[in-house]
Amino acid sequence: MQTTMQKRGLSQRQALSGAQVNPAAAKISAKGRARLAARAQAVAAPTLSKELVDKCVNTIRFVAIDAVNKSKSGHPGMPMGCAPMGYVLWNETMKYNPKNPEWINRDRFVLSAGHGSMFQYAMLHLAGYDSVSMDDIKSFRQWGSQTPGHPENFITKGVEVTTGPLGTGICNAVGIAVAEAHLAARFNKPDAPPLIDHYTYCILGDGCMMEGVSNEACSLAGHWGLGKLIALYDDNKISIDGHTEISFTEDVAKRYEALGWHVIHVQDGNNDYDAIRKAIADAKAVKDKPTLIKVSTLIGYGSPNKADTHDVHGAPLGAEETAATRKNLKWEFGEFEVPQDVYDVFRSAIARGASEEEQWKKGCEVYAQKYPKEWAEFQGLTSGKLPEGWEKALPSFKPEDKALATRQHSQSMLNALAPALPGLIGGSADLAPSNLTLMKMFGDFQKGQYAERNLRFGVREHGMGAICNGIALYGAGLIPYCATFFIFTDYMRAAMRVAALSEAGVIYVMTHDSIGLGEDGPTHQPVEHLASYRAMPDIMTFRPAGGPETAGAYKVAVEHRKVPSLIALSRQNMPNLPGTDMEKVAKGGYVVSCGCPQGNPDVILIGTGSELELAAGAAEELTKEGMKVRVVSMPCMELFEKQSAEYKESVLPRKITARVSVEAGTSFGWDRYIGWGGKHVGIDSFGASAPAPILYEKFGITKAAVVKAAKEVSKQH
Amino acid sequence: MQTTMQKRGLSQRQALSGAQVNPAAAKISAKGRARLAARAQAVAAPTLSKELVDKCVNTIRFVAIDAVNKSKSGHPGMPMGCAPMGYVLWNETMKYNPKNPEWINRDRFVLSAGHGSMFQYAMLHLAGYDSVSMDDIKSFRQWGSQTPGHPENFITKGVEVTTGPLGTGICNAVGIAVAEAHLAARFNKPDAPPLIDHYTYCILGDGCMMEGVSNEACSLAGHWGLGKLIALYDDNKISIDGHTEISFTEDVAKRYEALGWHVIHVQDGNNDYDAIRKAIADAKAVKDKPTLIKVSTLIGYGSPNKADTHDVHGAPLGAEETAATRKNLKWEFGEFEVPQDVYDVFRSAIARGASEEEQWKKGCEVYAQKYPKEWAEFQGLTSGKLPEGWEKALPSFKPEDKALATRQHSQSMLNALAPALPGLIGGSADLAPSNLTLMKMFGDFQKGQYAERNLRFGVREHGMGAICNGIALYGAGLIPYCATFFIFTDYMRAAMRVAALSEAGVIYVMTHDSIGLGEDGPTHQPVEHLASYRAMPDIMTFRPAGGPETAGAYKVAVEHRKVPSLIALSRQNMPNLPGTDMEKVAKGGYVVSCGCPQGNPDVILIGTGSELELAAGAAEELTKEGMKVRVVSMPCMELFEKQSAEYKESVLPRKITARVSVEAGTSFGWDRYIGWGGKHVGIDSFGASAPAPILYEKFGITKAAVVKAAKEVSKQH
Repeated sequence: MQTTMQKRGLSQRQALSGAQVNPAAAKISAKGRARLAARAQAVAAPTLSKELVDKCVNTIRFVAIDAVNKSKSGHPGMPMGCAPMGYVLWNETMKYNPKNPEWINRDRFVLSAGHGSMFQYAMLHLAGYDSVSMDDIKSFRQWGSQTPGHPENFITKGVEVTTGPLGTGICNAVGIAVAEAHLAARFNKPDAPPLIDHYTYCILGDGCMMEGVSNEACSLAGHWGLGKLIALYDDNKISIDGHTEISFTEDVAKRYEALGWHVIHVQDGNNDYDAIRKAIADAKAVKDKPTLIKVSTLIGYGSPNKADTHDVHGAPLGAEETAATRKNLKWEFGEFEVPQDVYDVFRSAIARGASEEEQWKKGCEVYAQKYPKEWAEFQGLTSGKLPEGWEKALPSFKPEDKALATRQHSQSMLNALAPALPGLIGGSADLAPSNLTLMKMFGDFQKGQYAERNLRFGVREHGMGAICNGIALYGAGLIPYCATFFIFTDYMRAAMRVAALSEAGVIYVMTHDSIGLGEDGPTHQPVEHLASYRAMPDIMTFRPAGGPETAGAYKVAVEHRKVPSLIALSRQNMPNLPGTDMEKVAKGGYVVSCGCPQGNPDVILIGTGSELELAAGAAEELTKEGMKVRVVSMPCMELFEKQSAEYKESVLPRKITARVSVEAGTSFGWDRYIGWGGKHVGIDSFGASAPAPILYEKFGITKAAVVKAAKEVSKQH
Repeated sequence: MQTTMQKRGLSQRQALSGAQVNPAAAKISAKGRARLAARAQAVAAPTLSKELVDKCVNTIRFVAIDAVNKSKSGHPGMPMGCAPMGYVLWNETMKYNPKNPEWINRDRFVLSAGHGSMFQYAMLHLAGYDSVSMDDIKSFRQWGSQTPGHPENFITKGVEVTTGPLGTGICNAVGIAVAEAHLAARFNKPDAPPLIDHYTYCILGDGCMMEGVSNEACSLAGHWGLGKLIALYDDNKISIDGHTEISFTEDVAKRYEALGWHVIHVQDGNNDYDAIRKAIADAKAVKDKPTLIKVSTLIGYGSPNKADTHDVHGAPLGAEETAATRKNLKWEFGEFEVPQDVYDVFRSAIARGASEEEQWKKGCEVYAQKYPKEWAEFQGLTSGKLPEGWEKALPSFKPEDKALATRQHSQSMLNALAPALPGLIGGSADLAPSNLTLMKMFGDFQKGQYAERNLRFGVREHGMGAICNGIALYGAGLIPYCATFFIFTDYMRAAMRVAALSEAGVIYVMTHDSIGLGEDGPTHQPVEHLASYRAMPDIMTFRPAGGPETAGAYKVAVEHRKVPSLIALSRQNMPNLPGTDMEKVAKGGYVVSCGCPQGNPDVILIGTGSELELAAGAAEELTKEGMKVRVVSMPCMELFEKQSAEYKESVLPRKITARVSVEAGTSFGWDRYIGWGGKHVGIDSFGASAPAPILYEKFGITKAAVVKAAKEVSKQH
């Protein structure tokens, strides 16, 4: 407790010192903004007639309708209902440069209702992004296209994050707003133009609102007071099962007020552009709360027979209804036809965006002259490169060093890395004293102290995971880590999968990695979790043994900025075994010891994490009895699989079929390494509530069990 | 849409017919209740002095303190803060029979804040349950004890559900309240004593409130208007990281109002017993909404130095602070000492409960005479036995029957089983038209029509899973099923794991089970999910091929009332292959065809689900080329593993090492069956957005790929 309180005290002091928080920033940077605005005016979209705006809005609708019809698959209803929001956001509100989608100070947009992906592709195309041509739109949802079924940041430039699993996009947006607030507080100065100063917009639907994960992240957004987060809720009252009245009758606006949000209602989101404009202006005026704009719309607006029904949610309109919709909306243009005056309107964004970025760059020059050190740090951070020599910060270990839990080593790593890696930011889902994840030199990221780097997620694992995806994909070199008990990855698995898919290099610090957790019992003891993540593509599952391998796991995890890493860490102590090696972790598996330098071993014992000690102990005993024993450590199966056939053969020679794996987890997946002739010493059932040493004994995960298994598998051969 | 609407229309008609809903029930059953109350009065707890109530409350506190001290592990703070609620619930409020914890009409209690398990054990012990003796309390958190670290229904009689993972207990309570409402609506009659008529109580804490899953289930509870659900929120403002102000500053009461709950605040939960009493009475008076009683307490109340700090949350008080607490609360009794007058108070529940059950039984006799058919159905349902011959309802198939998706077969099964299994109840997380899970002869379970059996969960997978656990563990023979896309089991995995652990025989209908989902893309395409559930203990993962195996999967799933089943079903069509067999699904794996009745095959092809067709097609082609090919179907690895060594050898003879597995999923875990000599035709990466046939082609999951792999593995041997 005291440590925690101390840290909170520290952070408050740091905040008060003014180094991170700049209440005066608005005053000065307003000048810069005024200059910027003046310049931008020159290329701003002209004030348009209602007729032309309608034309722009209907273009969005028909591009989506036509694309979904052509692909015979997709969701036209959302783009048809949200087209007015799209127009106001892209043409009148957002700051972005279509020709440089990676401009760091752009406004961010997240489509949490990811099934409406054609909305986003239509906007990107109309606004002049090179990533989405009309041909791309015509190949919507086809193999190899830039326009997959749900928005995928790793496919389409201009898409910030991968949405699709409902409820998570808004959480990503919270993460993006966290990153913005953090960098702004850290780098912006009262007497220089701001380096980071933008909004985060998000459109979410009824499905997102029903998912609990959105409540988690939005509770945090309210707590943190993320005033530059503006979420537009497409309140169309339709989900796949029909009208939301069959399962969703809560008062969403009131709930968001309860979560600490500023809430606005646009009654007619289908036609009342001014109401949308005003809502966004009002949202910007409230600086200490995120804003939810509930925009009541008709799904499939314009379709005379399908609007306001679930028929238009997830299926093409079809030729007949498309014709009826064209007639109804008086749309006289052909399939996939964009009127030139509409292009002219939207593509004014190209000049406008270029000018805005140019202004920002000039501001940066001013900043760089005044604050060369901070500018260098900002450039370093946002370069996407790790600081040179960062890895030297990792502590090294000797076998005679004290036995510790790997969660303790992890704490050492985080605290050693924090000064060396300016992008490191993270925290735990209310288990900081157990996960040991606090960076002791920093305070808590809180309202009024956004420059701090310890995040307090509360008991919200899934929200935490999705927020970290947003931070990672913000693209400014931030390295988010997050933590809970390994078992509770079950709550956040969906977010971890999206991290793997969307190249978000989040580091998952997962402690209490086995029945070694002890008395809390089987609801808290992971058994199948290692296997379940080893099975998942594009995520690395580490289970390090001792200090050297924990350092090695962090080294690989930090290096891989596009691949998430899960580091499974023990509650209980273990030695730093001779032969364990930080550098060799990158190989995934390696020989720790072999009583047979030249010849063939009689048996190979393969262990991970806390059980490598059992393998080493068994080897010692078997060696005394005259057996030739090789001990292999396998901290990361995924990396081992990536090694050359020669290397793998050198570690696990195929002709040696007498093999024993030992890991306090399920045998599932170990057959690849132990084969039909091997045995696994582990646990294929749920655990139990008792002190850890008793559990190891009762479940038969002991040195004696390894010795016995080794003798059995040797006899067979 | 029309189908959905029709069903909703139907359900409304059914509701109006009055068969399921009995607005008059209260009038008549009130008589019975009055009789009941009069009898119960005779054995009711006497009105106690404030002093004696304090003594009862402090007993709860010290039993918890002493047990946690002795085990050197556990959470004393919650029981110390919640002791007054415990007293009022167990001695003055709840209807239960300590000597028959399975009495069907008991009030249910769920400790959602499961880490406070000593609270529940203290109450069970004091109230006279045989399951928790003082010796059991003294072995809190020890191997083999009745008092594990978190409440486990399969260990301790009187514990209704397994809680521990935060946020889920309240969802289980929602499920229990659903079961109560359903059975009451279905069986109670206006002119007979009620068969089911009880409350569901739950204590939940700040952690539960932060978890999104609780928001999901509580949104549904509000929507459904579950008036007999009464949740007490232990508002102690402490979580593991410290005061909740660091991450949890939302207005919880307002949020619950927004969710449609009746909300009451007890300002002083530490001493104001009358306020707690009044709140519960007020909660009961509101019949159309669930009630949240926010009870403000001090965690660790009574501890002079640790109350209101996180130090008392999850660690023993220790000798010194225990002594200080004894002094502070003027507790003059010894360690583990329960004053006799306190036992006398609490154990009045034994006579009271026996009398209440006796009265209920007499009511049942009256009911049985008036409604013999309904009584027989009720008895059948609550007997825990399946109706004789139920399995005859399952449709059978011939190879020449039309190729269909297994999700379509699943729909046939559910609709065939619904009339044969009166306990079948379930639905989808807003994907009913895709999962095909509606029972067409029933309407929707909704406020005012609780007798219906289609549940509309909205887009709330995790809440759905946890609610179904409550329904399953209600103990009245209900068989809950629930559905979403297979990929979204990632959202509800934590609930599925608890189902497996806590012997809740939920059936998971998981459609769109592979890249065969097509255009929605990789966020919607399960790849590693089969492996991840095969790795989990005590859950059966089925991936049936065609109609016969889908029927077989349902047969096994329904038979296993204490083991959950996941049935992975295709979006796309597949044939009913010759050799596939409903009955053989129970073996987990079996020979579908063998071109080598006596001799040894040259190669074994193992397939599941939609890919069994590829194996069979490849076998045909290879046979033409003169090879002897065995085709094995493996619909359930877990069941295959349970077969005898002889049976397994008969299906997969060890000497035949040339093997190919084919499944549109990761290779992880297949090594057990294909060995080092085998190959897997599948997908070890994420999928992509494109039509399904293109994806199969591009990812190389084709008949040609199986043929090629078969030739390769055969050459090696």
